[in-house]
Amino acid sequence: MKIREVVITPVAFADPPLLNVMGVHEPYALRSILQLVCDDGVVGLGESYGDATFLDQARRIAAELPGEDVFNLPALRRIVDRVLGGEVFTDRHGLTGGFTSSKTLATVYGFFEVAMLDAQGHYLNRPVSDLLGGKARDEVDFSAYLFYKFGEHLDGRGDEWGDVRTAEALVGEARTMVDRYGFRSIKLKGGVFPPEQEIEAVQALADAFPGYPLRIDPNGGWTPATGIRVARELAGVLEYLEDPTPGIEGMAEVAAQAQMPLATNMCVVCLDHLEPALRARAIGVLLSDHHFWGGLRDTQALSMTCQAFGVGLSMHSNSHLGISLAAMVHVAAATPHLTYACDTHWPWKDTDVIEPGVLEFRGGAVRVPEGPGLGVRLDQDALARAHEDYIRCGQTKRDDTSYMKRFAGNDFEPNKARW
Amino acid sequence: MKIREVVITPVAFADPPLLNVMGVHEPYALRSILQLVCDDGVVGLGESYGDATFLDQARRIAAELPGEDVFNLPALRRIVDRVLGGEVFTDRHGLTGGFTSSKTLATVYGFFEVAMLDAQGHYLNRPVSDLLGGKARDEVDFSAYLFYKFGEHLDGRGDEWGDVRTAEALVGEARTMVDRYGFRSIKLKGGVFPPEQEIEAVQALADAFPGYPLRIDPNGGWTPATGIRVARELAGVLEYLEDPTPGIEGMAEVAAQAQMPLATNMCVVCLDHLEPALRARAIGVLLSDHHFWGGLRDTQALSMTCQAFGVGLSMHSNSHLGISLAAMVHVAAATPHLTYACDTHWPWKDTDVIEPGVLEFRGGAVRVPEGPGLGVRLDQDALARAHEDYIRCGQTKRDDTSYMKRFAGNDFEPNKARW
Ligand SMILES: [Mg+2]
Ligand SMILES: [Mg+2]
Repeated sequence: MKIREVVITPVAFADPPLLNVMGVHEPYALRSILQLVCDDGVVGLGESYGDATFLDQARRIAAELPGEDVFNLPALRRIVDRVLGGEVFTDRHGLTGGFTSSKTLATVYGFFEVAMLDAQGHYLNRPVSDLLGGKARDEVDFSAYLFYKFGEHLDGRGDEWGDVRTAEALVGEARTMVDRYGFRSIKLKGGVFPPEQEIEAVQALADAFPGYPLRIDPNGGWTPATGIRVARELAGVLEYLEDPTPGIEGMAEVAAQAQMPLATNMCVVCLDHLEPALRARAIGVLLSDHHFWGGLRDTQALSMTCQAFGVGLSMHSNSHLGISLAAMVHVAAATPHLTYACDTHWPWKDTDVIEPGVLEFRGGAVRVPEGPGLGVRLDQDALARAHEDYIRCGQTKRDDTSYMKRFAGNDFEPNKARW
Repeated sequence: MKIREVVITPVAFADPPLLNVMGVHEPYALRSILQLVCDDGVVGLGESYGDATFLDQARRIAAELPGEDVFNLPALRRIVDRVLGGEVFTDRHGLTGGFTSSKTLATVYGFFEVAMLDAQGHYLNRPVSDLLGGKARDEVDFSAYLFYKFGEHLDGRGDEWGDVRTAEALVGEARTMVDRYGFRSIKLKGGVFPPEQEIEAVQALADAFPGYPLRIDPNGGWTPATGIRVARELAGVLEYLEDPTPGIEGMAEVAAQAQMPLATNMCVVCLDHLEPALRARAIGVLLSDHHFWGGLRDTQALSMTCQAFGVGLSMHSNSHLGISLAAMVHVAAATPHLTYACDTHWPWKDTDVIEPGVLEFRGGAVRVPEGPGLGVRLDQDALARAHEDYIRCGQTKRDDTSYMKRFAGNDFEPNKARW
């Protein structure tokens, strides 16, 4: 069950001009696709960030893996620690909190861990969810993930969603997404417009979708005082308030006053942050993400800390393809203490590198694939096309801010807590 | 991979008159041995408490299991919750802290979980350590576990260890144990004699075994003030001080003054206790135990909480046989954040229900069995003999206190914090 060859393919796929506190999504989202080619023709798949820094780190690990057993995850950890110990990968896009050396190790480790678990599942002829203790649920709920957006990219490329910068347009976007995927809860990416405008938008969503759990995530775009004010005005409307303000201290200040729990994928993003955040009672919901929490097994183990501290658990998403979604679905299904519908950017893309048909949204939920491993298969032609797009697009890192400056004639600063 | 039949066999094995704060070990230690008989002749093994209350609860779960898939651990959890929800199993022996309903569920769940993982390993032809993410170490360190003891049981039955109630005799006991098993750290079960006498004994051990990490565990037999005094007198001598005083509050009081970390298997024994104990900074080392922490997977996940809070991890032991030792070794090997040698009562028994040869102590450590599942096989003749001993001995629960009263002519009260 040894690894013979490691193939990492950077890919790009078209992304609409979605707005957030850092700026606007560039024309392409980048990902890395991992193939662990093992004995007996088994191939384990993985997917993670496509930034050049990440790619470089992943490639240095990849060079060390041939000859390793896919069941030996501790050996992977030792290799990652040895090769990258002390390095800090800074993604710069600023939407998943600070980077520490331990978060860097967990991020690179997780990329390979998922592929090793996929390979294990193929050897054992069991789905990854079984390797994680079995399914606590047969399908995993996801939330509609609304964005304010421009109507077109700078090059004039538009999309079916059009210009969404008013509450009315946002309700329309939500309607399409709910109709198409059946989502039963709704999240708005905020931090784009002044808080009053976003509060109005959430209230318009509440009116249009009565009974739907709602969330807003300004990515730390507000001061604690503004966070407290928004929490007061949206009491009874939001199921949770996500990262209203940056940092554990600010979050704790808001949490002490807010009626609803605060969620985060920014102030608690690695093991180092858990103790200070939990002591400060800064969060009520942790948004886990196997891409930076050390893969599927550690993401699952994390749920016990949350359970012990009465903290809810949901799942964060960046722009992703099908391998990541399959991994999310397996770990979410195998984690009993998952208390909210997960985030996904799935509706914002129109291509993939996996064969279609396995991952379908019905009633806002995805059934756990039943095949061995992650249960998805790579479409090599689609992978080749997505790699060509990567080469052609010329992007090598995510930089929403510079792109926004080009839209705004340099008149943009991604200040955290600017309101 | 379905369960066809569930066989639970209560067994007894001879136990020396070992002393502790609750009294003295009775002539026999009781255990339950579990055989999950599955499709294709696969049998999954488990071992846990032998008290009548536990047996009754386990049998009620056993009746529900035929037809369940050994890969479906969430189904096991649902069955245990449904059948036992709200019940509290009180073991009465008082050495593993209070019992809550969640600890009861975790205890019964864990008994079956281990056997299901063993069966999974047989189906997949992989050791249980691989199902837990792979071995972070090839062998697991254990500590010598010293007891004060009487020379004979009430019926006159003696043992090779003789009467051990002085520091000198204790050093002799330690010498034999270290020579025979190669242990490289030493623990004394205290709470038996006045603290001054036990401090002297620890100092005698330090003199006789220079450089050996030492521990003492009075099972909460002291007041916080006494705990602080012992900590001061044994500063630089103890690697950790185990349960000097009962309860999270008292432990926190001692911890604030003690130079060495405090360990516990009494004030933190289920998920409910983690938050208050960690907030109070009551403990520096958690002594996990898969028998009451919900089996191997949850015991492993617990390590992440410990790591996040800078709390060390070691392993608690009650009198046990080889199936339990094999399970301890697999989970300990697969848990990177295991920071101390584990406890074991292994040297205090001279019989077993498994075929010999797999679990050997060399240099105080046990190599992880390499066969499928737990890697141990039941000796059906030995099991039958141990079951006959169970019937013959007439014990149905552990009760060190009543037995001590018979030794002491009723002149004994197991006061916690009596010194
Ligand atoms: Mg977020
Ligand atoms: Mg103890």
